[in-house]
Amino acid sequence: MRRVAVALLHHPVLDRQGEIVTTAITNLDLHDIARSAHTFGLLDFFVVHPVGAQRELANRVREHWMTGSGARRIPDRTPPMRTLRVVDSLGAALLALGPERVEIWTTSAKSGGAPALGYGEARRLLQEPGNPVLIVFGTGWGLAPEVSGKADRILEPIVSPRADGYNHLSVRAAAAITFDRLFGVRGAG
Amino acid sequence: MRRVAVALLHHPVLDRQGEIVTTAITNLDLHDIARSAHTFGLLDFFVVHPVGAQRELANRVREHWMTGSGARRIPDRTPPMRTLRVVDSLGAALLALGPERVEIWTTSAKSGGAPALGYGEARRLLQEPGNPVLIVFGTGWGLAPEVSGKADRILEPIVSPRADGYNHLSVRAAAAITFDRLFGVRGAG
Repeated sequence: MRRVAVALLHHPVLDRQGEIVTTAITNLDLHDIARSAHTFGLLDFFVVHPVGAQRELANRVREHWMTGSGARRIPDRTPPMRTLRVVDSLGAALLALGPERVEIWTTSAKSGGAPALGYGEARRLLQEPGNPVLIVFGTGWGLAPEVSGKADRILEPIVSPRADGYNHLSVRAAAAITFDRLFGVRGAG
Repeated sequence: MRRVAVALLHHPVLDRQGEIVTTAITNLDLHDIARSAHTFGLLDFFVVHPVGAQRELANRVREHWMTGSGARRIPDRTPPMRTLRVVDSLGAALLALGPERVEIWTTSAKSGGAPALGYGEARRLLQEPGNPVLIVFGTGWGLAPEVSGKADRILEPIVSPRADGYNHLSVRAAAAITFDRLFGVRGAG
């Protein structure tokens, strides 16, 4: 079983027009993705933001649930918040996960040109010994090409069964589904 | 294929001590569950709240994305918001889905006494002809016994692969995973 971490990237990501932007941190992303990551056994959740004030905000949220009144009120929130690591760049997340070479697995709502990795094969690959893996989710309208260009693997998009193909999941929902597909316990039924 | 809807219940639900309470609406629940439900082909998302002012809040959020400035800014949000129906009780949701008898399928993070329905079998049941199904999610610390007692089926809990069994998913994450398990397109990989 490889060490698997998740990163939520706020820069460089795309806006609706395809321009490269920096998005703001959404408080509930921190909670939801930390809880989903921890439930499915991931050890690290990197929140990546280049702006110091935004990183401070994320660290304050973390502290509230680690040692503040949140920790006393709802102690179940403390273990997932322990996985949260706030860094200024994707490179910093890779360094923190090292010293081995870390594989970058990107996610996207759209099929790209490169062949994507199916979840069944991905599950198998993660069970085998190997280098750590960082699964990267974008905010806004998705990862900038300079990030997707660094991908060792591109996970299959989560496809809608609808005839019109509508798929606009929140990043919170997409992350939960991805972790379940990669690590979820499947019953016999 | 049966008509499948989802309900998010704010009353009667349990608090941490197991008392029956009414929870407040979380704005992002409306967005996330509407987007996940619509992506996976569900036609109706009932938000159930007994308090008029809370229903009004949910309807205002809906209007913002249906006809307000939200609809102009991010038109992709409009189709999911169309599925949102704000009602005062679970009974009202069942009536709105009728006139046929509606099956109630409940969800829970914990295994109960009754035998649970696995997702593989649930997928098959939903593809067959039959009565409409309402999948019910609780807020707070889960559905009150008077609701779970009405269940025609109880969906298997989403189980953690962790040794300590920690599973505290947000209701937004649990709903996304449930829809994916019931309706998600599985690649060959």
